Amino acid sequence: MADSPFIRDVPAARALAAWRSAREAAGCPARLPAITVPLEDAAGRVTAEPVWASRSSPPFDAAGMDGIAVRAADTLGASETTPVYLTPGAYDVVDTGDPMPGGRDAVVMREHVHYRGKDAELRAAVPPYQHVRSIGEDVSTAELLLPEGHRLRAADLAAAAAAGATQLLVRRRPVVAVLPTGDEVRPVGTQTGPGEILDTNSLMLATQAREAGCEAHCLPIEPDDPARLAAAVRGAVPSCDLLIIVAGSSAGRDDYTARIVAELGTLAVHGVAVRPGHPVVLGAVDGTPVLGAPGYPVSAALTFDIFAEPLLAELEGAVPRSRPRARARLARKLASPLGMDDWVRVRLGVVDGTMVATPLPRGAGVLTSLVRADGLLVVPAGQEGHHPGEEVEIQLLRSLAEIEHTIVAIGSHDLVLDLAASALRAEDPAITLASSNVGSLGGLVALRDGLCHIAGSHLLDPATGGYTLPYVDRILGGADVSVVRLVHRDQGLMVAPGNPLGLTGIGDLARPGLRYINRQRGAGTRVLLDHELSQRGISPGDVGGYSREEPTHLAVAAAVAAGRGDAGLGILAAARAFGLDFVPVTREPYDLVVTAEALASPRLAPLWALLQSGRFQQAVEELGGYSAKEMGRRIR
Amino acid sequence: MADSPFIRDVPAARALAAWRSAREAAGCPARLPAITVPLEDAAGRVTAEPVWASRSSPPFDAAGMDGIAVRAADTLGASETTPVYLTPGAYDVVDTGDPMPGGRDAVVMREHVHYRGKDAELRAAVPPYQHVRSIGEDVSTAELLLPEGHRLRAADLAAAAAAGATQLLVRRRPVVAVLPTGDEVRPVGTQTGPGEILDTNSLMLATQAREAGCEAHCLPIEPDDPARLAAAVRGAVPSCDLLIIVAGSSAGRDDYTARIVAELGTLAVHGVAVRPGHPVVLGAVDGTPVLGAPGYPVSAALTFDIFAEPLLAELEGAVPRSRPRARARLARKLASPLGMDDWVRVRLGVVDGTMVATPLPRGAGVLTSLVRADGLLVVPAGQEGHHPGEEVEIQLLRSLAEIEHTIVAIGSHDLVLDLAASALRAEDPAITLASSNVGSLGGLVALRDGLCHIAGSHLLDPATGGYTLPYVDRILGGADVSVVRLVHRDQGLMVAPGNPLGLTGIGDLARPGLRYINRQRGAGTRVLLDHELSQRGISPGDVGGYSREEPTHLAVAAAVAAGRGDAGLGILAAARAFGLDFVPVTREPYDLVVTAEALASPRLAPLWALLQSGRFQQAVEELGGYSAKEMGRRIR
Repeated sequence: MADSPFIRDVPAARALAAWRSAREAAGCPARLPAITVPLEDAAGRVTAEPVWASRSSPPFDAAGMDGIAVRAADTLGASETTPVYLTPGAYDVVDTGDPMPGGRDAVVMREHVHYRGKDAELRAAVPPYQHVRSIGEDVSTAELLLPEGHRLRAADLAAAAAAGATQLLVRRRPVVAVLPTGDEVRPVGTQTGPGEILDTNSLMLATQAREAGCEAHCLPIEPDDPARLAAAVRGAVPSCDLLIIVAGSSAGRDDYTARIVAELGTLAVHGVAVRPGHPVVLGAVDGTPVLGAPGYPVSAALTFDIFAEPLLAELEGAVPRSRPRARARLARKLASPLGMDDWVRVRLGVVDGTMVATPLPRGAGVLTSLVRADGLLVVPAGQEGHHPGEEVEIQLLRSLAEIEHTIVAIGSHDLVLDLAASALRAEDPAITLASSNVGSLGGLVALRDGLCHIAGSHLLDPATGGYTLPYVDRILGGADVSVVRLVHRDQGLMVAPGNPLGLTGIGDLARPGLRYINRQRGAGTRVLLDHELSQRGISPGDVGGYSREEPTHLAVAAAVAAGRGDAGLGILAAARAFGLDFVPVTREPYDLVVTAEALASPRLAPLWALLQSGRFQQAVEELGGYSAKEMGRRIR
Repeated sequence: MADSPFIRDVPAARALAAWRSAREAAGCPARLPAITVPLEDAAGRVTAEPVWASRSSPPFDAAGMDGIAVRAADTLGASETTPVYLTPGAYDVVDTGDPMPGGRDAVVMREHVHYRGKDAELRAAVPPYQHVRSIGEDVSTAELLLPEGHRLRAADLAAAAAAGATQLLVRRRPVVAVLPTGDEVRPVGTQTGPGEILDTNSLMLATQAREAGCEAHCLPIEPDDPARLAAAVRGAVPSCDLLIIVAGSSAGRDDYTARIVAELGTLAVHGVAVRPGHPVVLGAVDGTPVLGAPGYPVSAALTFDIFAEPLLAELEGAVPRSRPRARARLARKLASPLGMDDWVRVRLGVVDGTMVATPLPRGAGVLTSLVRADGLLVVPAGQEGHHPGEEVEIQLLRSLAEIEHTIVAIGSHDLVLDLAASALRAEDPAITLASSNVGSLGGLVALRDGLCHIAGSHLLDPATGGYTLPYVDRILGGADVSVVRLVHRDQGLMVAPGNPLGLTGIGDLARPGLRYINRQRGAGTRVLLDHELSQRGISPGDVGGYSREEPTHLAVAAAVAAGRGDAGLGILAAARAFGLDFVPVTREPYDLVVTAEALASPRLAPLWALLQSGRFQQAVEELGGYSAKEMGRRIR
């Protein structure tokens, strides 16, 4: 452990406090400088002093309606039976906003004035100041309009202008510099060689900084060379308010961030009790805060949220943005490590009137979990997780309105669902079709447990040769569900281009030395394989690689394409996507199992309409390996 | 009514639909053009096609931990008692993210490896693929990454880059042009003459458009001249995606917007059933949507939210932003007109664990009501209002976290509360002190009804000559409340500079022809006036202007400064703010009445600390007319 002298598990709140103390000790300014900007440049900035009105608004008594301005006393006694007539000298026609003419103290709405020649006939008396906007009705000279520390919005600027301001004293926009590091890291847009990775983190962190209202720029990628890194840090800190160093924050052979921060300035924290995110570096160099972010993208993104955002808000003297929250029922058991705040990405959907949260893959490298997440669930350090069905609080990443329009699909993966998701959205941006791929069996169980609207399934029943329906009976018992045909699709062996091993079918999988790539238990394709093997009397133990599982057709195809395996069962579309050869095994139906409630719900109506669309059916068949002939047919 | 041929009360949803039909008929494009932009420029834009992965991420099998890469089979049988030793050729040291070396299929974490010389000692067997990130673990080639119609965020861009994208097809940013109109309208920053008003609406609407992700520009102000207006509209529409014409949307003498839209293009709607907002114009000219917004600032702001935002989102093929919602108890009865959606601005606070919503002033001209609002309550057209205490749904304008930290003060107005609000915020941006000015008596009633934490009061009890405490007994009965002294302050007659009428005190108010400006019933200053009058045997009826009420000291001072009245009772600070002369009447205590729960709550602790601060006390005394000698003393 000699090379990891610093790494600890500091709780997030304590880490933020330690960072603040270290910054104060290192002479970092507590707030950004205040600058004076014209009103039109002040939106999104934070006031650096209170804004007092220097002018009243409206600046004069004004007509509050279109009509005539009168002296209220002149209307005394007016009624339906005894109208009062005002001669032209005794009233003035005014429009809303006009200053009240001298000597007039009330307005009669145009609709209530009749004319006899040029005389105005009034059939009701009006009280003084009726429909008159008093000077200062909106804001009065010397009134506090906005406090210090207020982030300026459109209405604030207009009110400040009305109250006499033409410019405002605000905090300068924070400047964030992002320094990517790593021998293996290449700029986005370059062709990567073996072992090289793209610098997607800088793009993400700079964008996060801009989303938080900062100016952000990315520095050139530095290799894992302590001298060069130190020079880059020294060069960067004078011109930014926060330096984010990407990767190298761990304690591996090439992780120099913590050491360099300690050498050049103050290291406050190395390692926080947050997952994902753990190897975080917090410190200061030459009066500038420095944040070392982990290289795993989910860790990097959350590190920004948890540590950079509060710092940046503090520098501006404002409160950090906070996400809206909602309560949801957890779809499944969630185990969580003690001693770490666990930030779990979840999908959300309203099923049977209940908001349900389904945890997404938790790996720190799975950035798509953040892309697909509707919310974040924080399991605090002191808690070991949650029971299935437990009510939890979620920080929302999408609006409730969008979540309420989401069609939740859990089950087997098929590209047609992706295609449908995109077609539905193109038609109406309010509609989301969210698929979680857990295999056919998992989908039916999720449907039974009230976690989704539809379950995609292609489960073969070896006893009867039928698909899906026998499983529906078994798993969903007496539940009132329907089954809608999506497609027929070709399943086969995906093999390297040119089929170098000359595989002709399932029977060849027992060949010695062959490296098969399997699907997980409960996947329809796994059931199909087992059935095909057993029909040929082949034992799973005889298939090399039978225990190596991947979660989707595409993952199997990717493994074969990467040469990690020789064959895997999957759909033609997946093989095509990776330029693989395809040895057909069977054509199978792929169906959608739906609860009666969901079938009739307006939420799913656009999906059923889509399945009837000739254009969509054609697009599906063009993928290859699909027949859309029975698409949308209710088979139960 | 000949000059208002169009104005109607069209419900908002129907108005939006009519606008859409009219746009389609007028040949407006349904979506903005799609353009290809580099990833770094795509944040905030909306995808114009689905984004499919063209590359897997990670692009190779990679080490998931720092440690050594091994062949899992080589570790078989390793245990605490029978370690397995791997020679240097049989393992490779790897850091997280390194590609897996050929022939290795598992990683042993560095913490679990011991060395005997150069041999690695393993005390446990590892399964194949332990701590290995499979190729495509994050995203697989040919997978749907993002649908069409998705507004791009930081993580989306990073994921798209990892999946092989360097640029994306997105909708062009919408361009909004704002055309201010009106003979009396002057640019912000100019000195206004009598009857002139500042063009604050353009600043607000353009800022709202930018907040919604658009490019926005303001055109020069056009006078109320139909020919010039028509030319300006014709000139503006070719280079924008939405033209907003400000004011002139009503049916007054100078309101030409509807007529011009009808003449140049298609008028879809004139007049919507929304308050404030009613005189809205929706149409299209030369294939460009046109929105006529009312001139009242609250109406203009809401018109943008209700009509422009959905249109702009539709043009981008995305869902409009939607505000988070919360439920709150309504502080008081709310009457609302039938037939109109009524958008009520409310302040929110958590009192005794309950979220309480207090309606703000409802005038369409009171922009500060929007500045100060924490949320919006929409009373639908079919509803006549709400009972006090009713639970209602609120669209939030500030985050729940901020609202939960808000100190709610209802009662008498004093500038010291404004000063305290700003000082608290400067110290900690998370703290808001929100004051509603309803007079002393109203504050005590609000405190009794659980609507606020503190009530500012300076109520004189004529019977005893004591202040506030007798009222606390009377109104709050047995309730457990404390009273904290804020200040002593000078009350007197605010009169024009030089005191032209030579007023010497309350006794002079009965002078014939004098125009007094009074405060509302329940205000401490009104109680003081009545007491002073009765001591001198003057009847209220003998005071000219006694029935003319203003809601605050500053409003009274503004009225005197504008020459609308000759005198009003108020505090020295208000007189000074308007450069008025001051005839002292009395020095009175101003106190804060607090519930026991609020007194002890951490929410209010910063306020009590502030009242002890010498610096704050000094700042208060520098306002003039205040003594802070007893500030913070608990007098009950």
